[in-house]
Amino acid sequence: MYDFSNIRYLALDADDTLWMNEPIFVKPQDACRDIADDFISDPKELDEKLYDYEKKNLRLFGYGIKGFVLSMIETVIALSAGLVSGSQIQQIIDLGKEMLDHPVHLLETVEYSVKTLAEHYTLLCITKGDLFDQENKLARSGIANHFNIVEVVSEKNEQTYSDLLKRHNIPADQFLMAGNSLKSDVLPVLQAGGKAIHIPYHTTWEMEKVSAHQTAGYEYLELGRMSELVDLLSDS
Amino acid sequence: MYDFSNIRYLALDADDTLWMNEPIFVKPQDACRDIADDFISDPKELDEKLYDYEKKNLRLFGYGIKGFVLSMIETVIALSAGLVSGSQIQQIIDLGKEMLDHPVHLLETVEYSVKTLAEHYTLLCITKGDLFDQENKLARSGIANHFNIVEVVSEKNEQTYSDLLKRHNIPADQFLMAGNSLKSDVLPVLQAGGKAIHIPYHTTWEMEKVSAHQTAGYEYLELGRMSELVDLLSDS
Repeated sequence: MYDFSNIRYLALDADDTLWMNEPIFVKPQDACRDIADDFISDPKELDEKLYDYEKKNLRLFGYGIKGFVLSMIETVIALSAGLVSGSQIQQIIDLGKEMLDHPVHLLETVEYSVKTLAEHYTLLCITKGDLFDQENKLARSGIANHFNIVEVVSEKNEQTYSDLLKRHNIPADQFLMAGNSLKSDVLPVLQAGGKAIHIPYHTTWEMEKVSAHQTAGYEYLELGRMSELVDLLSDS
Repeated sequence: MYDFSNIRYLALDADDTLWMNEPIFVKPQDACRDIADDFISDPKELDEKLYDYEKKNLRLFGYGIKGFVLSMIETVIALSAGLVSGSQIQQIIDLGKEMLDHPVHLLETVEYSVKTLAEHYTLLCITKGDLFDQENKLARSGIANHFNIVEVVSEKNEQTYSDLLKRHNIPADQFLMAGNSLKSDVLPVLQAGGKAIHIPYHTTWEMEKVSAHQTAGYEYLELGRMSELVDLLSDS
């Protein structure tokens, strides 16, 4: 079941797989909580309301930082019953700009692993989010040149992967994807007939959590860091 | 010079080439002007300030509606010296959501032309902006099935087109692009060795204007509507 000798195409997710992403959402959210503090009794209200707005706005905004910033603004406006000031909202926008301009911190062993894997596989980067922001981060990562194919997609489901494999003439049984999200990087790849490996990141975004039954029936390996992928593949 | 007999690949821009886009920016901008009205002496201040913010934010936000909404918010905050209310900002966000949810209005002759052109060429749609928003609009347009290749790009310059032609193994001399923007759809295609046709839209966004010397040395045809492209190509 875990025979990877057939694999020719190796795809990696980007956010929280190649580089740190989730933590840069924490500071702006803390700042929102401070701003909302004057208007709410329980700080948890902010997180709940923000999550509601993110979920509700997903249909129109998609994934990415700009949508997150707009959801933060809506949240503090709602919690303050419209009383939040323009200056406080500017603080939120400034924090969003900081996120967009955040240095790209590669995760442990990623630089070496990507370089090594690129010598043996056609390497793809498949990432979800704002096209502009994702391309920007990859360009600043210093490892962009190792990827043969970069695909920024608006959603990662079975159809996305099937279309992508077809578009690039990649046989599903030669395709392996590794990433930190069961929901986006593992399950839909397995459904599309490829192989997948889970490399969890220490925090996982609420919306990315998959309950046990959704992964039932599908088998995948979990690794602790990317260099273990190099070891695993060099053994197979 | 205007011999198109060699053309096998025909690419079309989307916003203001396939469907109306520019006009949906007018209403939110008018609303911002109304909101800012209490704080400014000359309504033109809003437009100038907004344009400044859009230009300044382009490096971080890229193109697209979400970035435009954030720039509108920053503009009214700045013009009001932070006094604009949360409720007024919510109005701006709601107008932004309306833009994202706006029905897709195909331009005159587009439906027939795209259908006809698809019978004779490998048809591409090459569009700039928010990945999520652009895919969304194409899906709702009713003409998505006629395109063999859809590319949402973050910038349209010579490099973008050269990379794209290479990626799809398209010889530049078999490639023709048509769109409403000289800066994005015509000039860089000509620079990349392809042919290009200008189909201007009646309004052109400030940032898309190209001065005469930038197009000097490059020849291109200008057409009034997309069906003229069908006529032109069927004659060649």
